[in-house]
Amino acid sequence: MKAYKEMTAEELTAEQQRLEKQFQEVKARGLKLDMSRGKPSKAQLELSNDMMDVLHSGIDFDDETGTDCRNYGILYGIPEAKRLMGEMSEVNADDMIIYGNSSLNVMFDSISRSYTHGVCGSIPWCKLDKVKFLCPVPGYDRHFKITEHFGIEMVNIPMTPNGPDMDLVEEYVNHDPSVKGIWCVPKYSNPQGYTYSEEVVKRFAALTPAADDFRIYWDNAYSIHHLYDEPERQDYLLEILSECKKAGHPDIVLKFISTSKVTFPGSGIAAVAASKKNLDDIGAHMTVQTIGHDKLNQLRHVRFFGDMDHMHQHMSRHAEILRPKFEMVEDTLERELGGLGIGSWTKPNGGYFISFDAMEGCAKAIVAKAAEAGVKMTGAGATYPYGKDPKDSNIRIAPSFPTLEELREATEVFVLSAKLVSVEKLLEK
Amino acid sequence: MKAYKEMTAEELTAEQQRLEKQFQEVKARGLKLDMSRGKPSKAQLELSNDMMDVLHSGIDFDDETGTDCRNYGILYGIPEAKRLMGEMSEVNADDMIIYGNSSLNVMFDSISRSYTHGVCGSIPWCKLDKVKFLCPVPGYDRHFKITEHFGIEMVNIPMTPNGPDMDLVEEYVNHDPSVKGIWCVPKYSNPQGYTYSEEVVKRFAALTPAADDFRIYWDNAYSIHHLYDEPERQDYLLEILSECKKAGHPDIVLKFISTSKVTFPGSGIAAVAASKKNLDDIGAHMTVQTIGHDKLNQLRHVRFFGDMDHMHQHMSRHAEILRPKFEMVEDTLERELGGLGIGSWTKPNGGYFISFDAMEGCAKAIVAKAAEAGVKMTGAGATYPYGKDPKDSNIRIAPSFPTLEELREATEVFVLSAKLVSVEKLLEK
Repeated sequence: MKAYKEMTAEELTAEQQRLEKQFQEVKARGLKLDMSRGKPSKAQLELSNDMMDVLHSGIDFDDETGTDCRNYGILYGIPEAKRLMGEMSEVNADDMIIYGNSSLNVMFDSISRSYTHGVCGSIPWCKLDKVKFLCPVPGYDRHFKITEHFGIEMVNIPMTPNGPDMDLVEEYVNHDPSVKGIWCVPKYSNPQGYTYSEEVVKRFAALTPAADDFRIYWDNAYSIHHLYDEPERQDYLLEILSECKKAGHPDIVLKFISTSKVTFPGSGIAAVAASKKNLDDIGAHMTVQTIGHDKLNQLRHVRFFGDMDHMHQHMSRHAEILRPKFEMVEDTLERELGGLGIGSWTKPNGGYFISFDAMEGCAKAIVAKAAEAGVKMTGAGATYPYGKDPKDSNIRIAPSFPTLEELREATEVFVLSAKLVSVEKLLEK
Repeated sequence: MKAYKEMTAEELTAEQQRLEKQFQEVKARGLKLDMSRGKPSKAQLELSNDMMDVLHSGIDFDDETGTDCRNYGILYGIPEAKRLMGEMSEVNADDMIIYGNSSLNVMFDSISRSYTHGVCGSIPWCKLDKVKFLCPVPGYDRHFKITEHFGIEMVNIPMTPNGPDMDLVEEYVNHDPSVKGIWCVPKYSNPQGYTYSEEVVKRFAALTPAADDFRIYWDNAYSIHHLYDEPERQDYLLEILSECKKAGHPDIVLKFISTSKVTFPGSGIAAVAASKKNLDDIGAHMTVQTIGHDKLNQLRHVRFFGDMDHMHQHMSRHAEILRPKFEMVEDTLERELGGLGIGSWTKPNGGYFISFDAMEGCAKAIVAKAAEAGVKMTGAGATYPYGKDPKDSNIRIAPSFPTLEELREATEVFVLSAKLVSVEKLLEK
């Protein structure tokens, strides 16, 4: 088919009528489908059901040092959980603190702690006139909500397939002392599925922040979440904590991981990895905040996986379920939109999302159109700070939750909505 | 035996020599016993082992409305957990939010949230010159650590067997707008085991705070933690949320509970009960902080207990284990210290502690003496804000963790230490 932009008004009007008819037919089906959030599907959840059998009344509940995991204590997590999560995060067990069920909560706490008590002895952010965060865009809405919640000014940093625009990052971080942090999803980024290149990671590690209390908030949410088993189709991310150490800046990064999309969202375990100085700072607050996190759930995870090899095998089973979904969406986008010149999209090797860029000024209308036909997408704008996509262009597609059949229908609604809105947009001109 | 204060210097010296000899013998035994924290014993933990069998791969993981507890979602907790914890807290399910594993963490978050964002729209406490909390003393050290952490000035309020000195509470709360809260353990209080009388609860509910953002932080940690099955030996606490509603002040209280000392410390579930206005305020922050707490653990608890009757039966089995320990400590104190005039102690009907008041200026020395003989007690002073017991008198005894035999030895060391230090104190004069 001809690119829409090259069509005459008459051709566009004909196309609009054809699409409108299709749309009314689809709408009449009364669909109710959800492509809005990065939720694992039922089939993925089943993969971890056996974890519920690991702890039972017939066993002992001691960790490897003999500490009873049923009782109070062990603020930083049981040793074997620190080791396993350390391997998952590619750091030493001693570089880790194991938390409760949510890495988002750990990130929230990190910002809240900096706001109330500063970072490693710095002035608490609540006492400062201005605090800024850099936000690679498009990015993760829940990161942006945290910084917005604390009144932190967010600065958009454009993403590239190799990571954030590092010239801009260096310009801000190295010269503006009000810049206290940057949100990063460095591997299979949310929503584009991009992975930071080695050069980008090295440039992060080499930052010389104007602010002592600047930290890189490195949310490695999809560290082992490949879609393909073949090594050449798996993205590789340089480990940043060791790079920062090598560069002489061991304290500038906080790494976050969790098993939310490995075992059960909401019933996984989260962790932070950082330098000893940062962990001591975090620990001084934690000791006031809690007596300890859920050690039985830590034990449950460790005994279920045994080691990192088994966790990787487990992720490969997730990939088996996710891969056809991603490929189907990509195929549908290509088949239905390829050549029309009304949108582009990413083809990630892992993670939970496909990022779609519509023609400027069309994203909100496309999402609304899809909703009209019963398909819920992530709100347009959500991938930008304050929910404001300056071009009204980016849409996050989350293929994981629906079944393949539901996803097929939802994607068809989506491409139909994209075409219809684009035609209308072009006719407006 | 004669009261020490009535002894002559010669008698005291003879007694000192006799005690010193005993002490050296005990010390030579090289004991290593811990009476420092309110930790359940191994035998108590065993009571809940079957809870680990409740969820297994052969069952479905849906809550009663069909929501899959393995996945994201349900910020306030699954309905059946809200109902069960609501019953435990004697409020409606709708007056509840279910949290993660630690009510301490919920309290920390409540203070932190008030510090960063205020209370229901009030000025954030970090923007105020002075914030004060009332602290009934002796009280719970971890409460005091939280308020100290946020630079909140703590004001001691003397406890009585009926609760805090309410004349003083009213004086402060109703007239000083910098007073933003009071820490309460209203039933089987930590460390005295006192329960607030009906009159005290009604006076709390009738408070007319000078500060709109004043709240009662009602930590009902031992709500169902009786030592005796006989109703006449169980303390009764008036339910404060409904009293506050009746008095026209539904918003002045936040109630905290958890199953930490019902099932497993660290792997229980915590909850807060409050008015809709307060829950909405809390919820607005939670929605930024987390996607949800561990719903599988909520389901596990609900399916293990079934209903409140079974939870009470479960608590009765805890009491069977705890009761002989409390009675043994009380008997030993009476037998060894009764009539000596060197200390008084409480005889609670529930909770986790016995409070001991030594002669003024003796508490630190007694705790140090016991430590010298291998018995770890809660640090003297810990039951007061800033760790400062103005009379250096109060010692918290935690009988729960050691076995009965260990506890017998530990208590003997304690009474010996108390006697020895008291004799030395009297000889100083």
